Amino acid sequence: MFNLAMFDVSPLGSEFSQQIQQQIDSKTKPLGALGQLEQLARQLANIQAQRTGQWQNIQLAPQVIVFAGDHGIAQQGVSIAPSEVTQQMVLNFIHGGAAINCFCQSNSLPLHIVDAGILLPIASELAVQTDNFTESRLGAGTQDFSQQAAMTLTQVEQGLLAGKAIVQEKIAQGATVMMFGEMGIANTSSATAIASILLKQPVEQLVGKGTGISEQQLALKTQLISQGVERAIAQGATDNALTLLSEVGGFEIVQITGAILACAQAHIPVLVDGFIVSAAALAAYQINPAVKDYLIFAHQSDEHGHQAMLKAFNAQPLLQLDLRLGEGTGAALAMPLLNAAASFYNHMASFESAGVTV
Amino acid sequence: MFNLAMFDVSPLGSEFSQQIQQQIDSKTKPLGALGQLEQLARQLANIQAQRTGQWQNIQLAPQVIVFAGDHGIAQQGVSIAPSEVTQQMVLNFIHGGAAINCFCQSNSLPLHIVDAGILLPIASELAVQTDNFTESRLGAGTQDFSQQAAMTLTQVEQGLLAGKAIVQEKIAQGATVMMFGEMGIANTSSATAIASILLKQPVEQLVGKGTGISEQQLALKTQLISQGVERAIAQGATDNALTLLSEVGGFEIVQITGAILACAQAHIPVLVDGFIVSAAALAAYQINPAVKDYLIFAHQSDEHGHQAMLKAFNAQPLLQLDLRLGEGTGAALAMPLLNAAASFYNHMASFESAGVTV
Repeated sequence: MFNLAMFDVSPLGSEFSQQIQQQIDSKTKPLGALGQLEQLARQLANIQAQRTGQWQNIQLAPQVIVFAGDHGIAQQGVSIAPSEVTQQMVLNFIHGGAAINCFCQSNSLPLHIVDAGILLPIASELAVQTDNFTESRLGAGTQDFSQQAAMTLTQVEQGLLAGKAIVQEKIAQGATVMMFGEMGIANTSSATAIASILLKQPVEQLVGKGTGISEQQLALKTQLISQGVERAIAQGATDNALTLLSEVGGFEIVQITGAILACAQAHIPVLVDGFIVSAAALAAYQINPAVKDYLIFAHQSDEHGHQAMLKAFNAQPLLQLDLRLGEGTGAALAMPLLNAAASFYNHMASFESAGVTV
Repeated sequence: MFNLAMFDVSPLGSEFSQQIQQQIDSKTKPLGALGQLEQLARQLANIQAQRTGQWQNIQLAPQVIVFAGDHGIAQQGVSIAPSEVTQQMVLNFIHGGAAINCFCQSNSLPLHIVDAGILLPIASELAVQTDNFTESRLGAGTQDFSQQAAMTLTQVEQGLLAGKAIVQEKIAQGATVMMFGEMGIANTSSATAIASILLKQPVEQLVGKGTGISEQQLALKTQLISQGVERAIAQGATDNALTLLSEVGGFEIVQITGAILACAQAHIPVLVDGFIVSAAALAAYQINPAVKDYLIFAHQSDEHGHQAMLKAFNAQPLLQLDLRLGEGTGAALAMPLLNAAASFYNHMASFESAGVTV
């Protein structure tokens, strides 16, 4: 039996905070001079200490997982591209040709791809060619959420559990910091709907041009999302994450929501990518607010509504590079800052050890 | 005979711009979706094309060089630390214990240290222990620039040439992108004076608390810098970079100025660190405005006046992490973004090669 209590996340304690702060303040630098990297080191050390009891040495074994899913609303023309492109991009990920592949390569990050429910599965002979691909399909794309619920409650539950299972496998293999990415034509529509409902802000204030639609398409997109939002609210989505995800979610978003919850539950930090993954983080937060302690926000995307999401989390993102691509690219680009935070925390000399007199 | 025409920098041409833009726009992503990374790829490809004629594949061989120098004005109490700490930190750099060492290690960057004129040279038996150290001393710290010229014109000339020579050696060894860092107790005073003169803004608007002085020290610092600035302007510093650097410069700042000019001259991009290195960049710009085409601004530091400097360059820094440490740390932290820009530019699939239909 599915039960949301399966996602039992405990908030970060403060029992190690003082020792961690002392270690940071002993380093050969003026107090606080490493700014946001010090906050990052505190959070990483604290999360690790909750998991292992060890706070002196931050160990980061990163893993990127990209979830792909198709969206029924795409057929209404709310994106610059047709749904077929989702599958084409999944093949591009598998062949190593996409932006996320490049950034994973340049930052030495392992990449795993999940078909969470794209329109057509990729050919099985191709799927078995690679260890870095999992088929975890909730269906052949969602229903058009402007007209009806995107998926059933059963699909939501399956999706949350599937995301959790994928993360648990990676954790069992040694991952200690997780980045999620997504691919899904029209998924900014789903993310905007989730944000509108959970932030209690009108769609007009959150909707954006995704990867580049016209003003006319934007008006249509706004109207269609609003229809879905109105129906979802009437169904009780504001107070029930399962209803929310069923009404306006996406297969990749649901699985990422489960994956985020599973990380927080296992005391594994999540480096949150952009607009879509932040929507999943909002849904995870709705299920259990304690997830917030495990989230690190990688970047502020150029997508219009992302700023409002970050504000809701009171987050200070690490990067602001006007990206609007998804795929986990913002998270992959921010990972070297986590490594740098761990490096100074672990290896930098103390005033005493270096013989520095201030 | 010293002659500023030795620093003969040519502005970037546009003969490769169209091909470079076409390569970027062929990639499997919406047009412009990689935001600032696309601008970075354009600049890197363009600079390399000017140097080698080759624009299709950006090759980045990074080098970090930290210049250290002492400042006579430190004896007035404008910093939280005494000048002795400069030497202690140089030893820390050599022993691998400072923040810049950690970030160089976590981002795989080679680090070279230059004694540009600290108070006391480090013991020669230590200096020869490492290949990564150069003695390039213009003196035992500068004069107190609040009272008199910081150095002679001859020292300025020596310093510009020394910075150039160090860079030329690294370029000969294969470096294709350069980061400069600095260490020097009280060098924010010198950098503030340079900014005040070149940006034509009062010291009050640019001065900051460096690594953490009190309000009282800040008032003293402001007054002392202003004295130096007034004298420098009276001597003609506004229109003469040699006079400027002689009146209010620092030994590390002068050598970095020469190093920046030498990079631009050799068509090598410079990833500019924070407040101090930006002051050197302003001085280099005063000598030859074409240097600007070769500068990439790594971060906006927490030091008060840095924002005004960045604005003068019309620069959009890559990072904003509230750092106020120097040492080249901001540049070292931003280097992975340059690698990521090169990676997508070099390796990402085109729509055609990936079979993506949009």
